[in-house]
Amino acid sequence: MRLATVTSPGGTTAAIRRDGAWRALPAPDLSAFLRSHPVAGAAGLAGAELVDAVPVLPLPTPGKVVCCGLNYGDHIEETGREQPAYPTLFAKYADTLLGPDAAIELPAGVDADWEAELAVVVGATLRGATVEQARAGIGGYTVANDVSIRDWQRRTLQWFQGKAWDATTPLGPVVVTPDELDPEAGVDVICRVNGVERQRGNTKTLVFDSAALLSYVSTFTVLRPGDVVLTGTPGGVGMGMTPPTYLADGDVVETEIPGIGTLTNTVHLTR
Amino acid sequence: MRLATVTSPGGTTAAIRRDGAWRALPAPDLSAFLRSHPVAGAAGLAGAELVDAVPVLPLPTPGKVVCCGLNYGDHIEETGREQPAYPTLFAKYADTLLGPDAAIELPAGVDADWEAELAVVVGATLRGATVEQARAGIGGYTVANDVSIRDWQRRTLQWFQGKAWDATTPLGPVVVTPDELDPEAGVDVICRVNGVERQRGNTKTLVFDSAALLSYVSTFTVLRPGDVVLTGTPGGVGMGMTPPTYLADGDVVETEIPGIGTLTNTVHLTR
Repeated sequence: MRLATVTSPGGTTAAIRRDGAWRALPAPDLSAFLRSHPVAGAAGLAGAELVDAVPVLPLPTPGKVVCCGLNYGDHIEETGREQPAYPTLFAKYADTLLGPDAAIELPAGVDADWEAELAVVVGATLRGATVEQARAGIGGYTVANDVSIRDWQRRTLQWFQGKAWDATTPLGPVVVTPDELDPEAGVDVICRVNGVERQRGNTKTLVFDSAALLSYVSTFTVLRPGDVVLTGTPGGVGMGMTPPTYLADGDVVETEIPGIGTLTNTVHLTR
Repeated sequence: MRLATVTSPGGTTAAIRRDGAWRALPAPDLSAFLRSHPVAGAAGLAGAELVDAVPVLPLPTPGKVVCCGLNYGDHIEETGREQPAYPTLFAKYADTLLGPDAAIELPAGVDADWEAELAVVVGATLRGATVEQARAGIGGYTVANDVSIRDWQRRTLQWFQGKAWDATTPLGPVVVTPDELDPEAGVDVICRVNGVERQRGNTKTLVFDSAALLSYVSTFTVLRPGDVVLTGTPGGVGMGMTPPTYLADGDVVETEIPGIGTLTNTVHLTR
């Protein structure tokens, strides 16, 4: 199944893709749908076909957005660190998220960098979950770009202030359920800037896969349906280039996972 | 004014202290009240006197709980670091918070440490706020203990996984508005473990005061009424002792700010 939040002339609604068209689900958006319905029941709830429907930010109100850093071997290498024994975790907010085609607005002068990522959408309440329980609790997968403000990220020991800028993490365009996508078998995670491929990793090289991350996080904080976990970025970020290269006004960032879709976000630097 | 969320035989409600008694405010808790009413109007909304009312977690559903580390000179010294140019920030969740008299439940074997802190409660929507705007947007102050799981905090570069354990950060017992408390002039922040004073700092020695923190955070993410910012802990934490000393089963942690009140939390280590 492919799930989304879509806008159409009739308004915004949670939706499911059926036979080449979007059909309404009984909730104002996918966050609200996942909080009130099991993912597995979505197909049976498909309503009217929506004309001219366009996917927007699929999950506008997750309670938690947990991110994993340093989770691909090649990216760990480009940051000069060792293979980790534990996942490196930090938090973003629902406010940090951005639609799949929206502009990334930032003040001029910041060092904004790209980080293409697979995002896991939680489908069940997970508290102290084993890896198997966590795997069964995966609601689906989507695409994210953990756009990072490197100069703020490096101001202190904690990355949070470089990672939680409002409306800078594009997410979407759709959520694909695990029966249609298997990141453990391997899916590519790709980032292009102005059409030039800068990142291409594969999720089969993740140090901590989706189920391992959900299980680990659920040890200390409960995860609920609609929460999002970003699994980390492969090598090829701008700060790893020689010289380090950051996003400029007008740059177009495309973030793609074949089998899910592509985010296309233009950078607007303002002042 | 002193505001709280209280339970009484009639249920749970937002409340205001008037003439030695708690009176109901028109919201199910103080988070809900602050989202729908300006703090300044609370006195005019005081309803019926509540009999046998007991303060519980004042803010059960803040959208954001932002924490500042390394903000008192003596605590910075005990961690062996230099005075910071920027505040070190990390996030907790609403789920991380705990009532003022509730037990801190943790698995046996973790290195749980105390961190008494002044917490600022946001009273207005702050986005790109100057320090003056941020000061005017302070809704009040309360007491927190940023109980930290040191072994998890040190597992990776990012502290988050040692700081965001569900139901481990006691908060309360009441929120005192700025007309009654001036942390810039200085209030003591005290922690006792089993009656022995372990921390006593004064907020006039904060590197970044409440208004500076709210202004800084609002540069990158919007703060809304009821959000909470923890201002950091003074020296005297358990990991700074020789040898390092952590909380044991049955320990009683008292966290006090004169003029606000005292949190009293017993540690329960389970398996």
